[in-house]
Amino acid sequence: MDARFLNDWSGVAAGTPSEVHRPTNTDEVAAIVRRCQVQNQRITVQGGMTGLAGGAVPGDGDVVINLERMNRVEEVDALEGVMLVQAGATLQQVQEAAAQHGWMFPLDLGARGSCQVGGNAATNAGGIRVIRYGTMRDAVLGVEAVLADGTVVSSLSRLVKNSTGFDPRFLFIGTEGTLGIITRLTLRLQPPMGELSTAWVTASRFEALPELLRGLKLRLGPSLCAFEFMSGAFVSLAAPLSGQEPPAAASMPWHVLIEASGAPNRSADEELHAALADAMEAGHIDDCALASTIAHRQAFWRLRESIPEVLTHLKPTAALDIGMPWTQTADYMKEVGAALALAQPDAQHLFLGHLGDHNLHLISGPVDAQGLHAVDEIAYRALRGRHGTISAEHGVGRLKKPYLHMTRSPGEIELMRRLKQAMDPAQRLNPGRIFDDDKNGDTRCNAEPRSPP
Amino acid sequence: MDARFLNDWSGVAAGTPSEVHRPTNTDEVAAIVRRCQVQNQRITVQGGMTGLAGGAVPGDGDVVINLERMNRVEEVDALEGVMLVQAGATLQQVQEAAAQHGWMFPLDLGARGSCQVGGNAATNAGGIRVIRYGTMRDAVLGVEAVLADGTVVSSLSRLVKNSTGFDPRFLFIGTEGTLGIITRLTLRLQPPMGELSTAWVTASRFEALPELLRGLKLRLGPSLCAFEFMSGAFVSLAAPLSGQEPPAAASMPWHVLIEASGAPNRSADEELHAALADAMEAGHIDDCALASTIAHRQAFWRLRESIPEVLTHLKPTAALDIGMPWTQTADYMKEVGAALALAQPDAQHLFLGHLGDHNLHLISGPVDAQGLHAVDEIAYRALRGRHGTISAEHGVGRLKKPYLHMTRSPGEIELMRRLKQAMDPAQRLNPGRIFDDDKNGDTRCNAEPRSPP
Repeated sequence: MDARFLNDWSGVAAGTPSEVHRPTNTDEVAAIVRRCQVQNQRITVQGGMTGLAGGAVPGDGDVVINLERMNRVEEVDALEGVMLVQAGATLQQVQEAAAQHGWMFPLDLGARGSCQVGGNAATNAGGIRVIRYGTMRDAVLGVEAVLADGTVVSSLSRLVKNSTGFDPRFLFIGTEGTLGIITRLTLRLQPPMGELSTAWVTASRFEALPELLRGLKLRLGPSLCAFEFMSGAFVSLAAPLSGQEPPAAASMPWHVLIEASGAPNRSADEELHAALADAMEAGHIDDCALASTIAHRQAFWRLRESIPEVLTHLKPTAALDIGMPWTQTADYMKEVGAALALAQPDAQHLFLGHLGDHNLHLISGPVDAQGLHAVDEIAYRALRGRHGTISAEHGVGRLKKPYLHMTRSPGEIELMRRLKQAMDPAQRLNPGRIFDDDKNGDTRCNAEPRSPP
Repeated sequence: MDARFLNDWSGVAAGTPSEVHRPTNTDEVAAIVRRCQVQNQRITVQGGMTGLAGGAVPGDGDVVINLERMNRVEEVDALEGVMLVQAGATLQQVQEAAAQHGWMFPLDLGARGSCQVGGNAATNAGGIRVIRYGTMRDAVLGVEAVLADGTVVSSLSRLVKNSTGFDPRFLFIGTEGTLGIITRLTLRLQPPMGELSTAWVTASRFEALPELLRGLKLRLGPSLCAFEFMSGAFVSLAAPLSGQEPPAAASMPWHVLIEASGAPNRSADEELHAALADAMEAGHIDDCALASTIAHRQAFWRLRESIPEVLTHLKPTAALDIGMPWTQTADYMKEVGAALALAQPDAQHLFLGHLGDHNLHLISGPVDAQGLHAVDEIAYRALRGRHGTISAEHGVGRLKKPYLHMTRSPGEIELMRRLKQAMDPAQRLNPGRIFDDDKNGDTRCNAEPRSPP
């Protein structure tokens, strides 16, 4: 069996599936699911296998349904900016098809060439433009899904507004294939962005960044499209690994990549520059470099996007995607940074994130399996009482389910169980993801990471 | 008993409730619900009683839970732009509290002074700024709700991104109180809009408007905030009723009120004017008036918002809020307009709507009860095969449930029933709304409209 159908990027060790199917359309998916019902077999659904939480890793004896052949862009409405697509199309395919018709698909993330829009929907993916366009949830107008009994629910709405009861989209978006298998989607396209204005600023105190962000939001409105912060430690390591000179002294404690775009055909330079001049005057930032050429802009982003090189350099690594309010972030990083330095003194612990989306990434490495566990324990436990989340964008999968209760209330988890019971009483669809269906745990695959990438 | 607790604006005749409660906090709501469970009583939930679908009208013997005393704005985070509020606060209260803290709550609609944010959420309200800010669903970050057994589910997240399984928000938003009673919400505030640029354009052919809208979206990006079309017949009637001179000849077949706003502190005049000049050149519009003063702008909106006067003048009236793709709208209005003129020749039939939101309003009047039924039949039946919706923003309530199957697939309706069964097996919460729970119909109140306003 092709190894690529067994492990995703989480490093969770796979069980041995009984079958691997690669259907080409919804009816084939439904037929497989109906047969699994008759034969009482469990199903693992797979998209682009780029996940970081072990959601696509099969358990022993699972029937694997891999959607890579369901990759057709079926229809693009160039007038309204709506696309009908099979769930296995890659994000990049969708972005390119939108561009060919004069529109833009706004979701964007590093794995764009491999990840699939069905998987993006199942995990409610975020990425680098959430501050302006929202998450995948905001980009999906309708879904078609196959339920645990093989029924096909078609809710391929293409309307912006629809107030006729429960919206089936939300049963399937973000639920990681546990309530149904997304087979097709209608996607909402956006007008292409205008000319981009990009800046790199530094700050000596993290506490100044929420004020900076607030000021930018109020000054730039919807023109603001990125606010990506990085610790000086991250920049110091990323610069040589990516071959980029940092736009400001890497020794500064905090760096932020800021991007704005005005309406198409109109630059937001003036507003961004004025807002940053004010921020400098107010003492919120210490230094500021503006990208005056496309090459500058690319260099700024290259530094920010050198995460794969950083992960490889520090491997084995833990890569977390927690979330919390802006005002909790500085204190959280102090507390967790100190605890990690004590518990894993030989590893580096790097913070970066999308502040406007409440999303903080932590990269720790090198750490062995025990160290990974220690990082998880420290980072997730410190979220308690901070109104945060253990996953802002990667999903819970198999890896994070022991920590779900730290940021979801008992009532929320009980509600999830109740929905699972209503939709898939035999626990056949993606069992053992998000929470343990049977409360006895899912032991058919090793939920401890194997050897992280 | 206070008559205002019996009927909303739908004109559906009320049954006689056994009790009317006006709790002040979540615990009181939960206690009432638990008692109803023990005593096997049905519950009708009431917000601001501004609904048009009969959702708030109690059946005989119902326990009414009216939320008007749960109207506290509990917390405003002026840094991040997040508000925690009880469900019974009016929309206007929320808008004003946001403004006091330098932010804006973007949802806006005519009933702002009476409608409550809990009701806005329960029906996923839209309004006049959806094209830029989305519906209520996009403005709610978290909810707290009381389930049918009295359990309180607290999911008052204040995060933009959270990928940890099913999101409880979506069980309660848009489900009209059938799955739980929303008691508190966290709301996402927006930066105040910049200076507004407002135009009134006319077109001789409706078919030109989708092209006009597409061009504006691509030219203005997120600056576009309103695209409100009205038939010449509506404008001709609204002008004398509202005491406004139409900015262009009322005899033109189609009028559109267009509004844009740039970033705060920056006018979008230049882009809007350039885009409209292009549209004129391309022959998409025939005439164009720009609001050069605040008084002009107010006069434009006064005309558009004279719907209450039109409804009163034509009463008894049918007021529908259907939706469909842009490209279906012209053909639909021709077909339905002709059928209505034949079936109800003595009534006026006026079309207007929010094209960017796929939302078409139809006002027909005067029509008697039989005429109302005829309008519903004609208008809803013609939606078949058009990928539309019988309600874009008012909800289904009691009035529209016979037509739900016309724009929701059997699979979607079955899914709703399954969720209702899982969440409220005794059919105690807002029974008889959206669909008939027991398939035998809900006969405890007269679902035919009484005497519409």
